[in-house]
Amino acid sequence: MTQAQPPHRVVVVGGGFGGLSVVKGLAGAPVAITLIDRRNHHLFQPLLYQVATASLATSEIAWPIRSLVRDRPEVTTLLATVTGVDVATQRVRFEDGTAIAYDTLVLATGARHAYFGHDEWEPFAPGLKTIEDATTIRRRILMAFEDAERESDPARQRALLTFVIVGGGPTGVELAGTIAELARHTLPPEFRNIDPGSAQVVLVESGPRVLRGYPDSLSDYASRSLAALGVEVALGRAVSEVAADHVIFGDRRLETRTVLWAAGVRASPAAQWLGAPTDGAGRVKVAPDLTAPGHPQVFVVGDTASVLDRKGRPAPGIAPAATQEGRYVARAIKARLRRASRPRPFRYRHPGSLAQIGKQSAVIDFGVVRLKGEIAWWLWGLAHIYFLIGARTRLAVALNWVWIHARNQRSARLITQGKS
Amino acid sequence: MTQAQPPHRVVVVGGGFGGLSVVKGLAGAPVAITLIDRRNHHLFQPLLYQVATASLATSEIAWPIRSLVRDRPEVTTLLATVTGVDVATQRVRFEDGTAIAYDTLVLATGARHAYFGHDEWEPFAPGLKTIEDATTIRRRILMAFEDAERESDPARQRALLTFVIVGGGPTGVELAGTIAELARHTLPPEFRNIDPGSAQVVLVESGPRVLRGYPDSLSDYASRSLAALGVEVALGRAVSEVAADHVIFGDRRLETRTVLWAAGVRASPAAQWLGAPTDGAGRVKVAPDLTAPGHPQVFVVGDTASVLDRKGRPAPGIAPAATQEGRYVARAIKARLRRASRPRPFRYRHPGSLAQIGKQSAVIDFGVVRLKGEIAWWLWGLAHIYFLIGARTRLAVALNWVWIHARNQRSARLITQGKS
Repeated sequence: MTQAQPPHRVVVVGGGFGGLSVVKGLAGAPVAITLIDRRNHHLFQPLLYQVATASLATSEIAWPIRSLVRDRPEVTTLLATVTGVDVATQRVRFEDGTAIAYDTLVLATGARHAYFGHDEWEPFAPGLKTIEDATTIRRRILMAFEDAERESDPARQRALLTFVIVGGGPTGVELAGTIAELARHTLPPEFRNIDPGSAQVVLVESGPRVLRGYPDSLSDYASRSLAALGVEVALGRAVSEVAADHVIFGDRRLETRTVLWAAGVRASPAAQWLGAPTDGAGRVKVAPDLTAPGHPQVFVVGDTASVLDRKGRPAPGIAPAATQEGRYVARAIKARLRRASRPRPFRYRHPGSLAQIGKQSAVIDFGVVRLKGEIAWWLWGLAHIYFLIGARTRLAVALNWVWIHARNQRSARLITQGKS
Repeated sequence: MTQAQPPHRVVVVGGGFGGLSVVKGLAGAPVAITLIDRRNHHLFQPLLYQVATASLATSEIAWPIRSLVRDRPEVTTLLATVTGVDVATQRVRFEDGTAIAYDTLVLATGARHAYFGHDEWEPFAPGLKTIEDATTIRRRILMAFEDAERESDPARQRALLTFVIVGGGPTGVELAGTIAELARHTLPPEFRNIDPGSAQVVLVESGPRVLRGYPDSLSDYASRSLAALGVEVALGRAVSEVAADHVIFGDRRLETRTVLWAAGVRASPAAQWLGAPTDGAGRVKVAPDLTAPGHPQVFVVGDTASVLDRKGRPAPGIAPAATQEGRYVARAIKARLRRASRPRPFRYRHPGSLAQIGKQSAVIDFGVVRLKGEIAWWLWGLAHIYFLIGARTRLAVALNWVWIHARNQRSARLITQGKS
């Protein structure tokens, strides 16, 4: 006597690019999926800096996860915080003491910003990973101008109008460029006691150039573009102290009330849940098929996995890497269910690197093709709008960008939770 | 020997409809204006319930105050909290101990929700006056569905899916209708363990009908429309207890985790600053020219003023009343500067009452003309879009409404600050 087999239970932890890509790739497979995230929304992190700099509203780059899988009855979405994995009994544990069983587990739990062992800097130098991070940074930036407008002491006013961004990667470059534009183009007509355009914006990078990983010519172009926007690029200097009223980098001390952190990330604690070996950033050193070593039922993807590309270099912590890994894992799960041969080892293909530098310029590295300037900006804009979810969001984001270009007006300049 | 006279100093406290209307009306007058608000934004309160119910984003109904007066060099905007007025020396005092002098003062400091002496209800029954109020209510509503999805106890699940709105005025009616639509139309395809459509939405009103102040026929229509959306309208019952897990109204006790307060308001403490006589809601009983009794240099407008209309009834706490009062005060100030005769006493003209009941219906009372149903909805929508500020916002709000109509998708369904 045979019984109808219950469907294979796939539990996916994390509704970012990696986790969603697994769920998408499993469409039509005989599985029951539980998609778990501690937030109710999927976040388009590549544009998060635009929320932090008042260009976009949060709802334009975030979507309720369960709305994205509404047409998939086999997918159950849970808003819940995972606290551990019991690999022996194949269960995921939640904060409230309950647990859920899996046949296959996918950990796509991402990363947070990290302070190189200086966690005490966090209150003074917020990083940018979540919606709340972005609204915190937005409040800090806008409040600095508001406080400067009311400040009568010139030294304190100067400190309030000084903005230091730590880390010369894409996020640091994009933050610095947008803050400079906000100060130089959007705010000046609105203040009476200060000149927002006199704000000092400093981008601090410990390495020899910004956008490390891009070709030298594009890094140089980015530096020049930032300088043209009025950003001071301080290279080759590591930050050694961050406090409420100053920052020290190299031999330089700068009085400032606003330090933003775009320098380092640390993976989620997924490796600890598994007792798996990690790289320096806490990422699980996965097997070539993206399983956790010794745990063939457990896949790890995205920012919480350490994956090597064709040349033995680690795949970068960007959306396309997470998406490719998720897609691969979905194929691997389907192959196992069909008892087909294992897919070939995962290979990361780099689609190109893009970074915006202010509202009229960008750099793009497609390997053989390199673009910069206004054409690159248009491509950057189209690419980002293309990858947004849904026509309404695309229209809304395009509308905001048109307004920023035509009028220098930023639509999301709200200070919330700062004062009651 | 004569000296150039310094311009007359007008200090306006509050950047709502009343305060902004004063500033607008003073364009071209020989005055130096300081516009003070403790928030950085002007808020379009008539649509705040749409932020609370995930239909609109905060940035679509709020604008930085200083951006609204950027073309008026004689206007200085301050983000600051006023703590008192020294009428003897004509100074406004700030939280930080500083003060600013005025020749003419306009208090337009609005109102907060009030609990009829039961302030202990506030944590369990949030009201709706600020952006933060709206995101708090949105989080409560959305989290109730999320928690219900994970709850296995049927009684607790039932309580989580029960929503009680206290107060049958326009805000209560609009909240109840929109929550019912969210539950019945937007959410059902996205949940697997519960049926969001089975949610119980109860509107509690102590009076004999909803929309008191509207003609009976429109009140009746609103009740029927709410019933058609699945809202239970409980009339003639006052709330006697609100707690974390239940509410008691009349002889009925309902287990619920979500009670929303739309019942009462109390004016800002402006009257205490002046030592002025007040009505029962704490509003300053102003003279016929909207000055505070005994303080001819101090005008009071909007929700913090008690103003009688032609028939001796108090002007309602709505945007048109505040706007008319602000316009009148600007005229009165200009007349004084010209040493012209005093303007005739202020008279409130009621432009009509509008309330939306779900996405396809509204009621409008223009006095002789009364409208209801779909035509009223279109007029309601056009009127609100007309009064929004700026083309970008109008487009964005219209876009959201189209999406809600066509797809039942609400764009601002983000839970923030709930979990870290």
